[in-house]
Amino acid sequence: MQARAAAVGVRVRPHAKTHKSAVIARWQLEAGAVGITCAKLGEAEVFAAAGVPDIRLAYPIQPANAARVLALLDRVKLSIVVDDPDVAEGWSAAMQAAGRKLDVLVKVDVGFHRCGVDPESAKAGVIIREIASLAGLNFLGLLSHAGHAYGAKSAEELEAIAETEAGTLRSLATQLAQDGVEAREISVGSTPTARFVEDQDGVTEMRPGNYVYFDRTQVGLGAATLDDCGLTILSTVVSRPATSRVIFDAGSKVLSSDGARGFGTATGHGLVYPGLDSPHPDPSIIIERLSEEHATAKVPPACALRPGDRVRILPNHACAVVNLADELLVVDGSADGLAIVDTLRVDARGRVW
Amino acid sequence: MQARAAAVGVRVRPHAKTHKSAVIARWQLEAGAVGITCAKLGEAEVFAAAGVPDIRLAYPIQPANAARVLALLDRVKLSIVVDDPDVAEGWSAAMQAAGRKLDVLVKVDVGFHRCGVDPESAKAGVIIREIASLAGLNFLGLLSHAGHAYGAKSAEELEAIAETEAGTLRSLATQLAQDGVEAREISVGSTPTARFVEDQDGVTEMRPGNYVYFDRTQVGLGAATLDDCGLTILSTVVSRPATSRVIFDAGSKVLSSDGARGFGTATGHGLVYPGLDSPHPDPSIIIERLSEEHATAKVPPACALRPGDRVRILPNHACAVVNLADELLVVDGSADGLAIVDTLRVDARGRVW
Repeated sequence: MQARAAAVGVRVRPHAKTHKSAVIARWQLEAGAVGITCAKLGEAEVFAAAGVPDIRLAYPIQPANAARVLALLDRVKLSIVVDDPDVAEGWSAAMQAAGRKLDVLVKVDVGFHRCGVDPESAKAGVIIREIASLAGLNFLGLLSHAGHAYGAKSAEELEAIAETEAGTLRSLATQLAQDGVEAREISVGSTPTARFVEDQDGVTEMRPGNYVYFDRTQVGLGAATLDDCGLTILSTVVSRPATSRVIFDAGSKVLSSDGARGFGTATGHGLVYPGLDSPHPDPSIIIERLSEEHATAKVPPACALRPGDRVRILPNHACAVVNLADELLVVDGSADGLAIVDTLRVDARGRVW
Repeated sequence: MQARAAAVGVRVRPHAKTHKSAVIARWQLEAGAVGITCAKLGEAEVFAAAGVPDIRLAYPIQPANAARVLALLDRVKLSIVVDDPDVAEGWSAAMQAAGRKLDVLVKVDVGFHRCGVDPESAKAGVIIREIASLAGLNFLGLLSHAGHAYGAKSAEELEAIAETEAGTLRSLATQLAQDGVEAREISVGSTPTARFVEDQDGVTEMRPGNYVYFDRTQVGLGAATLDDCGLTILSTVVSRPATSRVIFDAGSKVLSSDGARGFGTATGHGLVYPGLDSPHPDPSIIIERLSEEHATAKVPPACALRPGDRVRILPNHACAVVNLADELLVVDGSADGLAIVDTLRVDARGRVW
């Protein structure tokens, strides 16, 4: 990811939500990342304590949290996003009262329709200029997340989303420049669109997160191959109650209930590698239903899995899986079987506020 | 729940998966529960360490875990379920090798089609008698979980599921008795069917879990009223990017992605109480989509919610929410507003193996 971005002169600021690991954040910084991205303050506090020097909260943090933000500002280079003039004024007041400056980017809605200033609104420019003019704030630029990329039906659609995202942000930045406001940073971020960064003229920073592990959804969206995926769930068969049914001990409290996404018609709750060192998943094993502690899979009668057998499951959504675990096992897949070589703490697990 | 069960002479062994709390387990025991139910060994280990004296693992634990089971047997009265003769033989061998006896119940599939011996199979009686005859095991009886109750479309269907469940188990027990095998315990368990325990002749024990908090799904299944529900998510509005849209800071890493269940056509990710002390949810606020850290809600233009406002969200599935939290805030709803009076650790959070 770093090499791809460097080739087009774009900075990388990985979203740490996927790994929530101080060790991996350090690897990303060593590889050339300019800092990391977090969503919640609680995550930023964990990474700040672990020595990450530059953190961007790509999330509309509220001024009620000013004390926590000020404490972070004493330790790290911190930036946040805003998408609302009232919230920006709250931050402005809090920073002026503390005699500090806070770096802010304005979140722009590039089509996901979650947070963000609507760039098609006649007021968009006015709102951004107003925010940029506030004392106590240091306006850095524009930030977006093309979350609708996860609903794309083809690589062409993904590429169009990436191009539109960059075009929308460029156009806003040009408009702002005409009004004397400089957007020095144009930050985009999503793993499915990351491979089209070459098409995103004007972008200065990308914030992919999931790429650190990838998952079945990223494979479904053409962002990764199965061999690129770095996180699977070790699971044990606990019942074979019928020839057509196998029960694994990984339920929604391990796999999460997040569904399959991708261009195809992927269904089910992950892909099953029927042995610990199976090179390929077995598509005939379909996890049709999750309970909290069980995965119920439909299998062909010839499936040899019996209670006690162990499998690996490639999850639909790695970020959700990691957040459900306290620690991960690091395995050497090149060894005979799978040798556990280390453990990896999920340092920022559950830091949701 | 205890009073309802006592009225018909049925023992209560609550499933601790919902609360995962040593404090609440103690309250349940003080109210008359004969012990608790867990799924995974890791949960049992937490509750054993907390002093719970009697734990049933309503889960097909594998003999590879014999060392952990033997360690638990030194501390608590422990029972497990089996649904496979090979697994039962594995346990038999492990217990004989250790010179111990392990209490087992046979899991019976009463229609959920997850784990369990198929009672309609001609082999069911043979399998159960074989398991009951094994040295090192102490056969207690039969156990079921009518998980298909969560798909019921009416109270009548729920009641029929409860009656069928008990009838299936009674019939098997009668057949076993004719062959000289006594099923002293007949254990059922699910919160939606718990109110029909009066219809379940022959049942000796029930294992409801969710009732300790209830949730939107239980309201949807007629098992609870909104006022019965004891767990909500405190959430903050972080954006009001459009008149028709509000963004809350509780995403799938707080609410889980578990969907709405119930007789009606409930959709969305929880019910929103628009103020901390609102007596009723506002059905016009519909959480249409969850991201990991955001809930995207459709609202009518008149909705007054603004960034910084705080709401409470009744989740679709309380068990999943609790497992995502390290601790819960205990609030006094009778106070002016919501006074935080205590915190409650989720002691067994994430103990999935």
